[in-house]
Amino acid sequence: MNKGITDFPARLASIAAETEMLLKQLLGDAPLDGEIFRPARLTTAMRHAALDGGKRLRPFLLVESAAVFGAPRSGALTAGAALELVHCYSLVHDDLPAMDDDDLRRGRPTVHKAYDEATAILVGDALLTLAFDVMARPEVHADPSVRIALVAELARASGLGGMAGGQMLDLAAEGRFEPKRLSEKEIATLQAMKTGALIRFACRAGAILGKADMAALADIDRYGIAIGQAFQIADDLLDVEGDTKTLGKAAGKDAAAGKATLVAALGLEGARARLKELVTESDSALARFGTKADTLRAAARFVAERRT
Amino acid sequence: MNKGITDFPARLASIAAETEMLLKQLLGDAPLDGEIFRPARLTTAMRHAALDGGKRLRPFLLVESAAVFGAPRSGALTAGAALELVHCYSLVHDDLPAMDDDDLRRGRPTVHKAYDEATAILVGDALLTLAFDVMARPEVHADPSVRIALVAELARASGLGGMAGGQMLDLAAEGRFEPKRLSEKEIATLQAMKTGALIRFACRAGAILGKADMAALADIDRYGIAIGQAFQIADDLLDVEGDTKTLGKAAGKDAAAGKATLVAALGLEGARARLKELVTESDSALARFGTKADTLRAAARFVAERRT
Repeated sequence: MNKGITDFPARLASIAAETEMLLKQLLGDAPLDGEIFRPARLTTAMRHAALDGGKRLRPFLLVESAAVFGAPRSGALTAGAALELVHCYSLVHDDLPAMDDDDLRRGRPTVHKAYDEATAILVGDALLTLAFDVMARPEVHADPSVRIALVAELARASGLGGMAGGQMLDLAAEGRFEPKRLSEKEIATLQAMKTGALIRFACRAGAILGKADMAALADIDRYGIAIGQAFQIADDLLDVEGDTKTLGKAAGKDAAAGKATLVAALGLEGARARLKELVTESDSALARFGTKADTLRAAARFVAERRT
Repeated sequence: MNKGITDFPARLASIAAETEMLLKQLLGDAPLDGEIFRPARLTTAMRHAALDGGKRLRPFLLVESAAVFGAPRSGALTAGAALELVHCYSLVHDDLPAMDDDDLRRGRPTVHKAYDEATAILVGDALLTLAFDVMARPEVHADPSVRIALVAELARASGLGGMAGGQMLDLAAEGRFEPKRLSEKEIATLQAMKTGALIRFACRAGAILGKADMAALADIDRYGIAIGQAFQIADDLLDVEGDTKTLGKAAGKDAAAGKATLVAALGLEGARARLKELVTESDSALARFGTKADTLRAAARFVAERRT
């Protein structure tokens, strides 16, 4: 089934399209069992935040990791949609005036620009809540112990000691609360939390869905850490080298805001060298999975080399 | 064991103290398994938001409902702490300048006043996320299918078609987005979502923990709806009749903001009469449970008659 690296763009696009369809269904107008009413303003603003968006890298990694472990694709797609809802909520809240104050996201007005701040706060809250609703559904996996493990790991990756905590560190790193200059190690911790944790979860979730043994889970975890770091360094390089039109968001903004990045700490050449090491590390982590993991290998290269 | 109505204040205080202890443990400085690091600023701000707070009515109802169904108390207390985290997050976000813009909560500065807006947004996000982390833990119930049912119901009660949606309707009812005057029915829907859904969940969660049959769950659900409505009407009466010092928050603020309340729709006498009916309805819903439900009966009276 796996044709390896050559069909990578098609696989990425296909999972993005399937994720989009799922998200559209999840954000319909009709209330579900146990819901009382879906307010139109909130529902449409949630669609603005979650639909027509991005490469859907996290669902992609989740589905492809699940494929390595032989877990059914449909459950992985649903779990991927849940994960993407967490990612989308984080973008909406990070863009708020009190946070990074961004007007543009994927070339379109951010939620608080298209609607208003109060609506944007509620959009984020409701997307995050919906993520756990979706992850708990039987469509994800027939075995409730698998679903509860996914809920538990997703919560831990997203919260105080994960993504939300990472955003807190990022704000602190700007010197917002007190003068602050991060060491390379502190920047790595910040990034492991802010962007790394969800990407790592995506990879682990596939293994959990496939009821992988501990050793295999440890290897996919190593891969998840490596590709998460590669993603962040490539992102920081793009902020330095990219232009606003290609990115669909303001380029050079991180540097202007004095954000802590490894590119600032390592220099351009140092950052590019680190990216190469991370691709090697991801290959090494995937060694035991043979050709089944070819798409994950290609994903590491794609993430390291991406230009948008 | 159940000594009925006479020891009600002691039971309420005891569950509040046990909940406080659990919340304190949950919000410690040390990262848990799967967490990378707990940023001090975010952790202390989360404690500001969640500790030393309120009557802990939702955990109380959850624990007492669980007692009716013979579910172990310790699991119910943990589930109650998870539920309280959702309630605390909602207060932090509702208090934000873009939302209700409140400076005081329980007589203390709100989180965005004590810290800043960005921190308050992240505090809410991380409390909500932690709630699902806690609800997924084995301490709640040994059976993962019980925990996943609780996660699913909690998400649905809290999100787009529940609490978050209710806050959206409340903002719309102020005429913020377009001129708006709600009918009595629309106000009831708003309140069923904004405050009713979590209270109803508290009651249902006890039944789920006790693996109640469908008929018993339906009765506890009726009780949950009734006590939720009674809570909100009493709250609205307090806003009209109370004073700022006793409440620990600004009195008369709802009326000043043109908020939609049933007291405005029914008048003071009408609202008091409706409260009496709701106590009768809650007694009727509890009929099948005999003396085991005496504390829940007392809770309905307490909620209807509360003065703070």
